[in-house]
Amino acid sequence: MYESSPTATGAFGLFVFCAGKTLSMKSIGNVKPQSMHFVEPLPLQSGAVLSDYTLVYETYGTLNADCSNAVLVCHALNASHHVAGTYEGQPKSTGWWDNMVGPGKPLDTNRFFVIGVNNPGSCFGSTGPMHTNPATGKPYGALFPVVTVEDWVHAQARLADALGIRKFAAVMGGSLGGMQALAWSTLYPDRVAHCLVIASTPKLSAQNIAFNDVARQAILTDPDFHDGDFYAHGVVPKRGLRVARMIGHITYLSDDDMAEKFGRDLRGTDYQFGYGIDFEIESYLRYQGDKFSEYFDANTYLLITKALDYFDPARACQGDLAVALSGTQAEFLVVSFTTDWRFAPERSREIVQALVKNERRVSYAEIDAPHGHDAFLLDDPRYMAVVRAYYEKVWSGLDMQMPAVQREAA
Amino acid sequence: MYESSPTATGAFGLFVFCAGKTLSMKSIGNVKPQSMHFVEPLPLQSGAVLSDYTLVYETYGTLNADCSNAVLVCHALNASHHVAGTYEGQPKSTGWWDNMVGPGKPLDTNRFFVIGVNNPGSCFGSTGPMHTNPATGKPYGALFPVVTVEDWVHAQARLADALGIRKFAAVMGGSLGGMQALAWSTLYPDRVAHCLVIASTPKLSAQNIAFNDVARQAILTDPDFHDGDFYAHGVVPKRGLRVARMIGHITYLSDDDMAEKFGRDLRGTDYQFGYGIDFEIESYLRYQGDKFSEYFDANTYLLITKALDYFDPARACQGDLAVALSGTQAEFLVVSFTTDWRFAPERSREIVQALVKNERRVSYAEIDAPHGHDAFLLDDPRYMAVVRAYYEKVWSGLDMQMPAVQREAA
Repeated sequence: MYESSPTATGAFGLFVFCAGKTLSMKSIGNVKPQSMHFVEPLPLQSGAVLSDYTLVYETYGTLNADCSNAVLVCHALNASHHVAGTYEGQPKSTGWWDNMVGPGKPLDTNRFFVIGVNNPGSCFGSTGPMHTNPATGKPYGALFPVVTVEDWVHAQARLADALGIRKFAAVMGGSLGGMQALAWSTLYPDRVAHCLVIASTPKLSAQNIAFNDVARQAILTDPDFHDGDFYAHGVVPKRGLRVARMIGHITYLSDDDMAEKFGRDLRGTDYQFGYGIDFEIESYLRYQGDKFSEYFDANTYLLITKALDYFDPARACQGDLAVALSGTQAEFLVVSFTTDWRFAPERSREIVQALVKNERRVSYAEIDAPHGHDAFLLDDPRYMAVVRAYYEKVWSGLDMQMPAVQREAA
Repeated sequence: MYESSPTATGAFGLFVFCAGKTLSMKSIGNVKPQSMHFVEPLPLQSGAVLSDYTLVYETYGTLNADCSNAVLVCHALNASHHVAGTYEGQPKSTGWWDNMVGPGKPLDTNRFFVIGVNNPGSCFGSTGPMHTNPATGKPYGALFPVVTVEDWVHAQARLADALGIRKFAAVMGGSLGGMQALAWSTLYPDRVAHCLVIASTPKLSAQNIAFNDVARQAILTDPDFHDGDFYAHGVVPKRGLRVARMIGHITYLSDDDMAEKFGRDLRGTDYQFGYGIDFEIESYLRYQGDKFSEYFDANTYLLITKALDYFDPARACQGDLAVALSGTQAEFLVVSFTTDWRFAPERSREIVQALVKNERRVSYAEIDAPHGHDAFLLDDPRYMAVVRAYYEKVWSGLDMQMPAVQREAA
């Protein structure tokens, strides 16, 4: 048992933990995705409307009688509703945050009812550009409306309604997922008790947007993109997707981590003096690009990078993030990683400072991890301990509110 | 007149200057490129041989009687022999380092005989992939041999021979040009009196190589590349070149500078919810990419990025840069810029430390400039003053060696 637990403070608090003991943790095991169809049109920030749509989601753990133990996990660019566990007969299908979510894990499914939901526009099951546009009878393609972080949150709120969850014990996400958590705290302030914003930012920088736009240009100018209607042509703009993924991947790793993992290691014994693979880093990146281009949808890549670019809750408040966050009611945990140069700690500190200005209860952990942006998906024990300790606090808060009979059963 | 002048020290010296007075400087005016054909085959590091080749170059100023005032300026990825001045009737044809080289400028053409030379493999006049391969009678295309920084230096040395220059007063370059200057100091130690290595690195990092490889992949997978033989097809792989340039450009600017110049400024008044231009940074990068794809050769881009990747003088010395630089005889000025994240100051310090270990005379300036890697091309007054002061020193050294009659004439 992990024994320490932090007290969230009303002020800017930095804490870093080391887990003292080895924890017994296992995966949640086999899981099954579910889906729900919504017929009520979803008005989007762009002015467009998603006439009807399906959301694919997974749940882990058991919703308690007063529906107070639900935690929503929001996914980032390349992920989905499949947060934890594996699919039957597919041992390699482990969820993207399986190290974080499961029995005995930092987000403990023995205590919490955890929901992972795939966002509209994605390519992993929820309604997206590859699905039939009811207006044309053909795949949406490039006609799928540009969706925003806020649109996703509204869609997620409808799923919560349908599942009978009035208020989440916590909404949590890393990177783009962290933006969704933050948006929950402003759009539905009374429906979020705790908000965990990890390796995220209140808005993209010019450099972030620049990288996204180069990736988009690689896809948009791939002759196989066919203005987004490549489905009808029986092709996939793999070249563009591959380059887009390679660019993205560079920004996920730290310079130091890349140096440590690959350095200038050669694939062979000497320079090849050609354009094949000389360096191990080339081999790695090309492999990542190839793999990605096999399964990811090009229209989805465009949509999701736009959602990233557009996220800027302070925009409606003359750029004042403190004003933008003034209506929040949640308590917050903000986590950043020192070597993350995509969304550097400074960006997380902006969120913390805006919350402190509003006298919100916020805890902040800046983890000295070497793995860049990707660190939020990895197993740094201090990071895991921070999240674990925070969920201890979330749980103890629930415990206080629970009727005695449930407290005993818990 | 600028009055201060640094003394190069045998130890690691940091100095930053502010020019106290405005200097009267003008461009060198109209210049003309020259060319020289070499029939002696040039053996390359790859084992291939360039059977015969032409070098295009420009010179500014006057070579003195004992040929001791020659300075070689080496160009980086996107530049050429056209360092300073303009071409007649083309007022916008200003050389790429016109702010640095000219009458009264830091590298003063009233004193020095300055040579800019276009490297083999480039697309600005010297023999390159678009020229006829004597072995086939067709353009080299992808058959143009991969050339290295060291190959370029050997080619430059032949030009120096032909011009009667036994020893350079200085060899100077920024970025990839700095690598050439450094290579001169090891390959021809007795032919370089002073070596100016600016915004450079002793070798590319894994992250540097990664960015280069993504750019290459964008070009190599452009259907219009035709395995490098696009000349025969009457097309240009513009899509690939455009993406390559956009990626490169991001790495030339600092995050802060991009934030300052563009931030999240919109082109219009609101989000467009499409894939046109929303942000000013997108407009800028796409414009840079488009422009570049109009004039740069795709095979050259591949060649030059490979030359960058391969440069690693310590490689033959078990990675020990001090050993690699132990044969140098020059005095050195090394300059870096604090916000340069492509070749960060740390990389320049590696060079300085290796030189100090060898008890070479080296001066080091780390300029706190906001403009990232591009700073080496810009007008930071402290940077300009450092280079100016260093050339004062170079000049005063020449002066000592000069016969009295010449000293008076100077």
